[in-house]
Amino acid sequence: MSADASRPTPAGTTVAATTGRDGAAPGHVFDDAIRLVPEAPGVYRGETSAAYGNMVGPFGGITAATMLNAACLHPERLGEPVSLTVNYAGPVADGAFRVAARPVRTNRATQHWWIELSQDGVVATTATAVFAIRRETWASTEASAPPAPAPNEAERWPIERARVAWVRNYEMRFVRGAFPDPRRMPMLDDSTSLLWVRDDPPRPLDPLSLVALSDVFFPRTYLRAAQIAPAGTITITTTLHADAAMLARQGTQPVLARAQAQAFGGGFFDQASAIWGEGGAMLASSHQTVYFK
Amino acid sequence: MSADASRPTPAGTTVAATTGRDGAAPGHVFDDAIRLVPEAPGVYRGETSAAYGNMVGPFGGITAATMLNAACLHPERLGEPVSLTVNYAGPVADGAFRVAARPVRTNRATQHWWIELSQDGVVATTATAVFAIRRETWASTEASAPPAPAPNEAERWPIERARVAWVRNYEMRFVRGAFPDPRRMPMLDDSTSLLWVRDDPPRPLDPLSLVALSDVFFPRTYLRAAQIAPAGTITITTTLHADAAMLARQGTQPVLARAQAQAFGGGFFDQASAIWGEGGAMLASSHQTVYFK
Repeated sequence: MSADASRPTPAGTTVAATTGRDGAAPGHVFDDAIRLVPEAPGVYRGETSAAYGNMVGPFGGITAATMLNAACLHPERLGEPVSLTVNYAGPVADGAFRVAARPVRTNRATQHWWIELSQDGVVATTATAVFAIRRETWASTEASAPPAPAPNEAERWPIERARVAWVRNYEMRFVRGAFPDPRRMPMLDDSTSLLWVRDDPPRPLDPLSLVALSDVFFPRTYLRAAQIAPAGTITITTTLHADAAMLARQGTQPVLARAQAQAFGGGFFDQASAIWGEGGAMLASSHQTVYFK
Repeated sequence: MSADASRPTPAGTTVAATTGRDGAAPGHVFDDAIRLVPEAPGVYRGETSAAYGNMVGPFGGITAATMLNAACLHPERLGEPVSLTVNYAGPVADGAFRVAARPVRTNRATQHWWIELSQDGVVATTATAVFAIRRETWASTEASAPPAPAPNEAERWPIERARVAWVRNYEMRFVRGAFPDPRRMPMLDDSTSLLWVRDDPPRPLDPLSLVALSDVFFPRTYLRAAQIAPAGTITITTTLHADAAMLARQGTQPVLARAQAQAFGGGFFDQASAIWGEGGAMLASSHQTVYFK
């Protein structure tokens, strides 16, 4: 993956990359997990997927994709998602849930969303999203993709070591900062993980899978504090740089994903992450706050 | 400012650092600007401040502080702010506005908020916030403060060059990436700005001023694309690392603030930023998506 040069945004990028996945979507395990069935205008019914189970409740990335899906499916949606913030307010219990999506304000080229996931009337997850019609402008990836061997030169992380179900839906090839072996866990100065990752089975990249991929990183405390102790994302914000053309070029190829914590203390740490794709272009960048014990 | 070593979280950090600023607050220009008067439970009335005027409407940082202030003032508030996302959905017109803050979910140690700023019933700004009771844990600033001369060794940015009012309320001492001189504007490979900054007149740091400081950076396109063209934050998320003890240690001293864009294209770029304080501890980190022309 080369360090990126400035590149113009290709023409035709105003074509919406986003089509929500509803009851009629094909049967990829990811699409099954984020499936929403309209109940009323802007209100959808979904169900947790055992395939994306985490320690407690679902994988945060699949919840993020589900929240975004609700806005994507909404008949008043404008353009493509540009930013998504998901707040994990409480646990999501196994079973059915309701997602309500409301366009709070629609401008000529941007649209702001409020999205709420609830179970039995109790809010479990909230989100805000910004959708926009992208325009042709000067373009460049300033934060270049870190050097990495080709995906097939990096060893696939052994899926039999997975402690949680959702990991089995990703092909992960760590370049550095792999999930540590609990028998040999030194405290590291640097919490960085760098990996090639894609859906397994492969699935063409779209904004929904991109926001899920932005949360595939295990807690940075595992590397820095050398402890496998409870930790969970409280809030994550993802900027989606990938337009329709970039997503189409990426297809099912693995993306290069990097995450690093910046500061720990008082029961929380933050994590900055980014995902690069074909030609070294940044596809998404994220910032999250994580609770840890 | 030394590179940080691991440091324990000081005792007593569960003391709330946060007291909202209401009508009775003292007359610092910042407190005047973010002042809110309760109208009904969770509903406050505020007014834009000419002192924090930007190109169009108020400085985004003062709006962020005002949104956070509404949650801080709310009688049901739990603990301190840990994360704030502010979405600039539309322009805020000069004059009065209403801010509604609602605790969406309150857990034992965390609380999630929805906050909405409106004028004449039209939503202009939305926000979500996470408050929490901080606990004593392992602590460390992994992303060290960049090397910088002492604040008094860096030249103060000449306030007479300010094109907008809000800049006059900050003492800015650029170490690199200063606001460019329009007569000599090369395109740079690196959009980084690094500066010492504090309120002017000095004001003891608190979560409200910290979220405002997290948005003091001019658009990264000014440096990278060498064009002073319209640009504005669409959404900003700030993780607040500073607890009460860290804020008290910081007092009115300048903080070291760094910002860099990561990728540009399709009319948007993202910006990662961080603020370090006394002893090199990270006080806050942010991620924003910016619209540009």
